[in-house]
Amino acid sequence: MSEERISFVPLGTVRNQFDYPAQGKDIREHPSRLEIRPAYQAGLTGAAPGQKLLVIFHFHRAGGEAPLIQHPRGDRSREPRGVFLLRSPHRPNPLGVTEVEVKAVEKDGLTVTGLDAVNGTPILDLKIVDFGKSS
Amino acid sequence: MSEERISFVPLGTVRNQFDYPAQGKDIREHPSRLEIRPAYQAGLTGAAPGQKLLVIFHFHRAGGEAPLIQHPRGDRSREPRGVFLLRSPHRPNPLGVTEVEVKAVEKDGLTVTGLDAVNGTPILDLKIVDFGKSS
Repeated sequence: MSEERISFVPLGTVRNQFDYPAQGKDIREHPSRLEIRPAYQAGLTGAAPGQKLLVIFHFHRAGGEAPLIQHPRGDRSREPRGVFLLRSPHRPNPLGVTEVEVKAVEKDGLTVTGLDAVNGTPILDLKIVDFGKSS
Repeated sequence: MSEERISFVPLGTVRNQFDYPAQGKDIREHPSRLEIRPAYQAGLTGAAPGQKLLVIFHFHRAGGEAPLIQHPRGDRSREPRGVFLLRSPHRPNPLGVTEVEVKAVEKDGLTVTGLDAVNGTPILDLKIVDFGKSS
């Protein structure tokens, strides 16, 4: 197996009012903007309100330690488990995935609900959710 | 926005009988092994049959051109649309995400169904699907 690292380019940035780690539920209920860089905006052709998309993003604030076994949500009263059975941002590869709903389509991006990523988060990919129906 | 690339390390490799691009449906119906590198195997602690996981992987065979507007599944009779509204492996950042079901847990990995990634695909992350119930 290759030991090489695999690298990706930020396609855009999350813009919302959450500049600090908040509870996922709070973030998800508020709209977020997915601001897409000009070079990639054509990739939004066909976007429409009501679509469900997966957003893949970089937990850019995670830094530091990423133990392979963690207490769920850092709650020491809960039994620790492997990081692959958790959604913790502290992981070997700090990748996040959230399903969002498109609320509005703008020239330079989308407004969505359901995202649990803080302001400034680098966006790595967007994909339609339902392969069978929509791709 | 940063122009820097963001890099990740392969945590493991997909092992199945599909050495060539196959229809997603054919791959998904067959079991695949998610072989995890020794350094990351502790991250599987708590894995159990029946769990639903997201697998994030690198479309390592995609290479070449990744137009921002494509015909769905390359079918020229279908109206082209933006790559962010498609699941095409040919994308600016060749990241794949699939929901799988754990069928068996081994010391060095998992056997799953539902994966549509070919043999040798680098695995970048695994996450439990349901944040509310399971993390």
